[in-house]
Amino acid sequence: MSIPNQQTIQQAHTRITPYIHRTPVMTSAGIDEQAGCPLYFKCENFQKIGAFKARGAMNAVLSLSESARAKGVATHSSGNHAQAIARAAKIMGVKSYIVMPRTAPEVKKRGVRGFDGEIFECEPTLAARESTLADVIRKTGATEIHPFNNYDVIAGQATAAKELFEEAKDLDVIIAPVGGGGLLSGTALATKYFSPGTQVFAAEPAGADDAFRSMQSGKIEPSQSDSIADGLLTSLGDKTFPIIRELVKEVITVTDAEIVSAMRLIWERMKIVVEPSCAVPLAAVLKSKEKFKGKRVGIILSGGNVDLGRALKLMTE
Amino acid sequence: MSIPNQQTIQQAHTRITPYIHRTPVMTSAGIDEQAGCPLYFKCENFQKIGAFKARGAMNAVLSLSESARAKGVATHSSGNHAQAIARAAKIMGVKSYIVMPRTAPEVKKRGVRGFDGEIFECEPTLAARESTLADVIRKTGATEIHPFNNYDVIAGQATAAKELFEEAKDLDVIIAPVGGGGLLSGTALATKYFSPGTQVFAAEPAGADDAFRSMQSGKIEPSQSDSIADGLLTSLGDKTFPIIRELVKEVITVTDAEIVSAMRLIWERMKIVVEPSCAVPLAAVLKSKEKFKGKRVGIILSGGNVDLGRALKLMTE
Repeated sequence: MSIPNQQTIQQAHTRITPYIHRTPVMTSAGIDEQAGCPLYFKCENFQKIGAFKARGAMNAVLSLSESARAKGVATHSSGNHAQAIARAAKIMGVKSYIVMPRTAPEVKKRGVRGFDGEIFECEPTLAARESTLADVIRKTGATEIHPFNNYDVIAGQATAAKELFEEAKDLDVIIAPVGGGGLLSGTALATKYFSPGTQVFAAEPAGADDAFRSMQSGKIEPSQSDSIADGLLTSLGDKTFPIIRELVKEVITVTDAEIVSAMRLIWERMKIVVEPSCAVPLAAVLKSKEKFKGKRVGIILSGGNVDLGRALKLMTE
Repeated sequence: MSIPNQQTIQQAHTRITPYIHRTPVMTSAGIDEQAGCPLYFKCENFQKIGAFKARGAMNAVLSLSESARAKGVATHSSGNHAQAIARAAKIMGVKSYIVMPRTAPEVKKRGVRGFDGEIFECEPTLAARESTLADVIRKTGATEIHPFNNYDVIAGQATAAKELFEEAKDLDVIIAPVGGGGLLSGTALATKYFSPGTQVFAAEPAGADDAFRSMQSGKIEPSQSDSIADGLLTSLGDKTFPIIRELVKEVITVTDAEIVSAMRLIWERMKIVVEPSCAVPLAAVLKSKEKFKGKRVGIILSGGNVDLGRALKLMTE
């Protein structure tokens, strides 16, 4: 495997298209007015399993050899990637082994089991997750599919931006949120090959600004992990960072209050349910209006899997 | 004006198309599984002003004579119809006079003012609303556009079902919520003329079951008005009831708990924001699964204008 190029992204798109939604691109005159620029939202909250992760997982499972498929796939994840892998595996008739912290929400575990994923619970630390996963792989011979540090996954995530470019022509800017960098590096590569005139921005929670700091220091910085945007707490990987470093113009950081305010705007004006991590790019646009004034801006809305009780608490505090 | 027929509904559709969204039809495999039948949701929560009311108001304003337009339009409403009329009037360069109870939420008043509607506040009683409106009309010569008891409004609301039939072929059933009956009578007429093989059902809150009782007694029964579905508390009008009586097969009533549960399902599974009134038809399907088993069912999702704090509180209590 090597860094995805125009052909591998195109192939990934062809490969996964039967198994994913082509999600709609939505606009909102009211939000455009507040932002001072026309915004094109690629609504991956409507994607299968409620998030873009369905794309990368599907591409990774479809790209396995017959012999690898026979032994199954494995990953550790407490979130959307877990369900995405279990779903992709089930579609292909492949076993999936999912390592999850025992503290993961019951709804996430049910989601994985609903796709016949076999769950291995572990202590909620990265070390425990990694050692449990290593055990599972040793015993089963399954192929690990990392949530972001995997070129097949990156090529799959790239297809969201590719579809956006097909519908919203001549974007001046595209913005994606950044956690581990799978979506962002995929978005950046899709831009390089399918819309080279578009500038790529990243948006990141200020409380987990490792990508921002990594861009400044030139090496992968660890994450502090303090934000309500719980999908964006991971630090970058050695496959995602070099792509991001080369192709992303700037990382904009936003506070949790700015994230909640943008999330509320999306719910109220667009009538769609998005998770906090998903509102981070709009928060970045609203915070940096001068940068985007009058430009045509594409935003990847990453997902809509949010606990309604938690959302209530965030939006009414 | 007479009861809308095939031609007048077609004309209404042509007339309003430049000014409204053709809203998407969404599906959800997860909800289909729970319901036991394939459901096609016509998403009027994505309509201009966030509700189907944009259709009827637009058709009514566009249908006015030049001389009537010069004098403006008037209505009393505390909700979506107020904004819909103000918006339609602004588009056509017509004055709008909106009578609202002084207790109406500030956000609704801002919505009307945002479309340059002139607000006349009154006491929050039907008598005060009607006498204030009569005053306004006497002074201005404006034309009253009633929220539902008006054939131009009914023809406009009919276009939502017409569009649904164009996209979801061979529906066995279509279900709309019923308050005053504008959407339901329009839906029933659209079905008669554009999909005559489809059965029309209505869904109504049990705490405001005047349509259910009216169908039984054969005359318009007053509403009791006790439900969280605050868009459906009105009783039927003398223009909507005869249409409903002739064309609607059955009114299904649902409790507030059933409404909240259906609303939660729509938010969580479909990732869209809908108001309580909007969830009433899905609640009816889930309550009466045996009636709809295996049938192709169209549902008009009427709107998404909801106070987020209130909605989330209802769903997480």
